[in-house]
Amino acid sequence: MMEMKKPTLITSWYEIRAEAVQARKQNLKVGLVPTMGALHEGHLSLVRTARDYCDVTIATIFVNPTQFGPHEDLNKYPRTLDDDLARLGALEVDFAYAPSKEELYPEGFSTFVEPPSVAKRFEGECRPGHFRGVTTIVLKLLNIIPAHIAFFGQKDYQQCRVIQSMAQDLNVPTLIQLCPTVRDPDGLALSSRNQYLSTAERTQALSISKSLDDAEGEVSRGQTDMRRIVDRMRNTLEAAGIEKIDYVDIADAQTLEPVAQLQNDAVALIAAHVGITRLIDNRILSHR
Amino acid sequence: MMEMKKPTLITSWYEIRAEAVQARKQNLKVGLVPTMGALHEGHLSLVRTARDYCDVTIATIFVNPTQFGPHEDLNKYPRTLDDDLARLGALEVDFAYAPSKEELYPEGFSTFVEPPSVAKRFEGECRPGHFRGVTTIVLKLLNIIPAHIAFFGQKDYQQCRVIQSMAQDLNVPTLIQLCPTVRDPDGLALSSRNQYLSTAERTQALSISKSLDDAEGEVSRGQTDMRRIVDRMRNTLEAAGIEKIDYVDIADAQTLEPVAQLQNDAVALIAAHVGITRLIDNRILSHR
Repeated sequence: MMEMKKPTLITSWYEIRAEAVQARKQNLKVGLVPTMGALHEGHLSLVRTARDYCDVTIATIFVNPTQFGPHEDLNKYPRTLDDDLARLGALEVDFAYAPSKEELYPEGFSTFVEPPSVAKRFEGECRPGHFRGVTTIVLKLLNIIPAHIAFFGQKDYQQCRVIQSMAQDLNVPTLIQLCPTVRDPDGLALSSRNQYLSTAERTQALSISKSLDDAEGEVSRGQTDMRRIVDRMRNTLEAAGIEKIDYVDIADAQTLEPVAQLQNDAVALIAAHVGITRLIDNRILSHR
Repeated sequence: MMEMKKPTLITSWYEIRAEAVQARKQNLKVGLVPTMGALHEGHLSLVRTARDYCDVTIATIFVNPTQFGPHEDLNKYPRTLDDDLARLGALEVDFAYAPSKEELYPEGFSTFVEPPSVAKRFEGECRPGHFRGVTTIVLKLLNIIPAHIAFFGQKDYQQCRVIQSMAQDLNVPTLIQLCPTVRDPDGLALSSRNQYLSTAERTQALSISKSLDDAEGEVSRGQTDMRRIVDRMRNTLEAAGIEKIDYVDIADAQTLEPVAQLQNDAVALIAAHVGITRLIDNRILSHR
């Protein structure tokens, strides 16, 4: 039987920082993959990319309470630390940093990041305070672990732009690298929340990636009127029986401001509820 | 005639960062002294301390617009770059980083720090947004210049505590070192704004340090009722003819929450207007 190597599990910010600093002193390139655990192939593809680009790979596992709203799924968010460590070990990740809540938010904690303007719309409107929590925890992790590159999945496209913009504004010296969304063969973007879906809901959920495929097809056939494309996307979702759509829209890929005509790269964005599960997905619409 | 060495003047964040990173790679200790220029002996004492503790000393000169309120003295704040560089040169400072406004706040800049709870009272109440600007620029400077130690003057006591608390909450890996307030022989705490004072105003202003001396004397004689001491301080200021007192109070030295009885270390804090000049000063009241 093959012995599975596990990553070194570290729970203190002081120790993981020392490891990262030590690696940098040896001129090793340090890659960071921040996660909330419940690892799936999407996370693992980030880890593989980190391993390709870097000498030392550190994954963090922390369900960050400050990015959940009061009525969101913080308490039932899946926690699978042993499985996560086994998966990271199979990919020969060097360190897993899995701190406690008290480690990162001790009593008296009261400093937050006020997120950049790209955080305003979409998730920012649907989930007040979400990006404040995201930017705060990511900044903390980047201060604890001075990585050369941090890897984030494009599935959370607005989150990626928010973090890039925050890093630029605050002169954070880590490169924020976006990596492609990983999908199941049927097109559904991988998400830790997919496990909440029933079989029937999963069929409904496929209309999300299908409508994004459609949008991409329309653009490639020369459609430049974004309102028409958005209408089609909405129709596709509704035809599949999705009743609660938080947003379906096309925005500038950099600023996430609305676009009526395709002039620069844009992004089609969807957030919709399937049963009690909220799903998001997106697609870059390239302007040629 | 002696040739005066000047520090290397750098205006790009990219270049000063490279110098600091290079120094760290050589295992040199890097010290940072952030200033708004108009350097006086208070700043220079910070620089001397930095030189004592560190191998490479970097001073920054930047009048940070985001920490000034709309009706404050941003535009008339003294700017004396050539003099400043000569003074830093006389102390053999290695680098002076003096960026433009556009360098640190380019178009589209929109991420800020939401300061910790210790920022709420006193200056936080009198100068809304002030500490948001202070914490944002200090975090930016600490990201640009990964110093081992950053040196701040105790004259801005609340600012010191705000920055320490921010650095702790956000896991900033730089030690925030407080240094003693430097005073003129008559007791007036040095400040770039003292040059606004007329001779008569300066005499009035001395009541500020005098009332802090008094408070310290009272505590050393066993007075533990802080309200009595605050009343005496206010009387001293008013007797000197100071008409506009923003605050005179005694607070917990860590949290800056009000204290009625001296139980832990406390701090006496004053902000008052002398003519059109707003002055602040403070004194630690040690609990033995």
